[in-house]
Amino acid sequence: MSALGALGQRIWVFPDGDIPPHDPYDPALKNSETHGHESLVVLNTGSTTVNPILRVYFPEREPWCIKLSPIPPERVACYRTDEPLGPEGRQIPEGQYALVLECEMPVVAQIGRMDIRQPNLAYYTVMGFPAST
Amino acid sequence: MSALGALGQRIWVFPDGDIPPHDPYDPALKNSETHGHESLVVLNTGSTTVNPILRVYFPEREPWCIKLSPIPPERVACYRTDEPLGPEGRQIPEGQYALVLECEMPVVAQIGRMDIRQPNLAYYTVMGFPAST
Amino acid sequence: MSALGALGQRIWVFPDGDIPPHDPYDPALKNSETHGHESLVVLNTGSTTVNPILRVYFPEREPWCIKLSPIPPERVACYRTDEPLGPEGRQIPEGQYALVLECEMPVVAQIGRMDIRQPNLAYYTVMGFPAST
Amino acid sequence: MSALGALGQRIWVFPDGDIPPHDPYDPALKNSETHGHESLVVLNTGSTTVNPILRVYFPEREPWCIKLSPIPPERVACYRTDEPLGPEGRQIPEGQYALVLECEMPVVAQIGRMDIRQPNLAYYTVMGFPAST
Repeated sequence: MSALGALGQRIWVFPDGDIPPHDPYDPALKNSETHGHESLVVLNTGSTTVNPILRVYFPEREPWCIKLSPIPPERVACYRTDEPLGPEGRQIPEGQYALVLECEMPVVAQIGRMDIRQPNLAYYTVMGFPAST
Repeated sequence: MSALGALGQRIWVFPDGDIPPHDPYDPALKNSETHGHESLVVLNTGSTTVNPILRVYFPEREPWCIKLSPIPPERVACYRTDEPLGPEGRQIPEGQYALVLECEMPVVAQIGRMDIRQPNLAYYTVMGFPAST
Repeated sequence: MSALGALGQRIWVFPDGDIPPHDPYDPALKNSETHGHESLVVLNTGSTTVNPILRVYFPEREPWCIKLSPIPPERVACYRTDEPLGPEGRQIPEGQYALVLECEMPVVAQIGRMDIRQPNLAYYTVMGFPAST
Repeated sequence: MSALGALGQRIWVFPDGDIPPHDPYDPALKNSETHGHESLVVLNTGSTTVNPILRVYFPEREPWCIKLSPIPPERVACYRTDEPLGPEGRQIPEGQYALVLECEMPVVAQIGRMDIRQPNLAYYTVMGFPAST
């Protein structure tokens, strides 16, 4: 099949991020398959590698700017926002934050959260708001 | 890094709000980390402070209009809709309501609900509908 | 305050509806505050009454067309899709269905599902896809 | 009633797919009504049959291209992404994947996930990102 070309938009906004605590309430639940996390998932349908920049906003401090690892052509990438990000390994602290993803080519971006602080997981997902100007 | 400028839209609509009861079914669950709530999260990526106006609609009464606390440049703000809002401390009653957020500059707004009325939390999130005219 | 005018769009599409069984797995959970349901929530910010038409699509039968009760100006309305709808009291059967809401004036529409077939509720919500032509 | 015509867009993007394991943690939960799955739901409101093409993207391999079964006029179709897809019965492996749905006529597409790996189900849904060029 022929490639689709680069679908989506260059800028995606996620207002409601919240890093859940690493330790679940019930330690027996912590295993390799289910652990609390937030993941930013980005699809590059284009034929060139994309180099995303992630801006992280907070309620009471200056925003951060992080270079994410590149996404090859026709691949999906998953960035765990509860783990160190970028070449400097920056760790977003627990609590409220917002994200703006910026790429040099159109992509489509979605975020998902899995929370296992209680005996059963709860999770949700949301497509970013496309805000290319 | 340079600021991104004001991303998003000036008006955001959230049809489905529902204040969950404050008291969980299992009182042992109520603690500082998990409590039932609905939060309106607003990201201001611009370089000026934003002063949001929140309109609250109900099934059977006239809408309210509430001034929210301002959002500084490049900050994310979280408004708990189950707590008193605005300078008059207006409390949205339990039950169905809808929100329209209006700002003088573009922002991006999302709402999330966490429900702990039963032994395990359930939650969801949704991006607002951007309705600037 | 002055009215905002009619925000939103005239046509909203919801592909993924699924009526959950009325009876929970654990009968002790059935009470006035939590019961399985799907709700279509529609906000009319305009200054005139809106008369919505709901089209219901199925995997293997002809679509239905149902007149919903009108929404007064500046009010939010909630239609339970698991209960009889419209003047003829049509009951959507259990299983897969899709909805298209059509109004004569712009509105904003969102659907939510609460499922209590197991000991703890699970729910989600999604904004409709605005498809006015 | 008269048909609405083909509502929606021709291309829909879903970045965050993740096939959950077939086996629940608690085997007692596996029954005909609740089982872990991801479903792509597509509504064709038009008056002609639609023949969808599904492209599946992965983190580290070439994308797949799968012909889905056609959707008759004015019908909703549900494709289980955890089951064999298309005439060749291709099975998406467990783990991260992304989808792009392409149709010759406008449709509206949404994905939902139900996870029962723990004693209580968790699920979510998201409308696709409409990316017609």
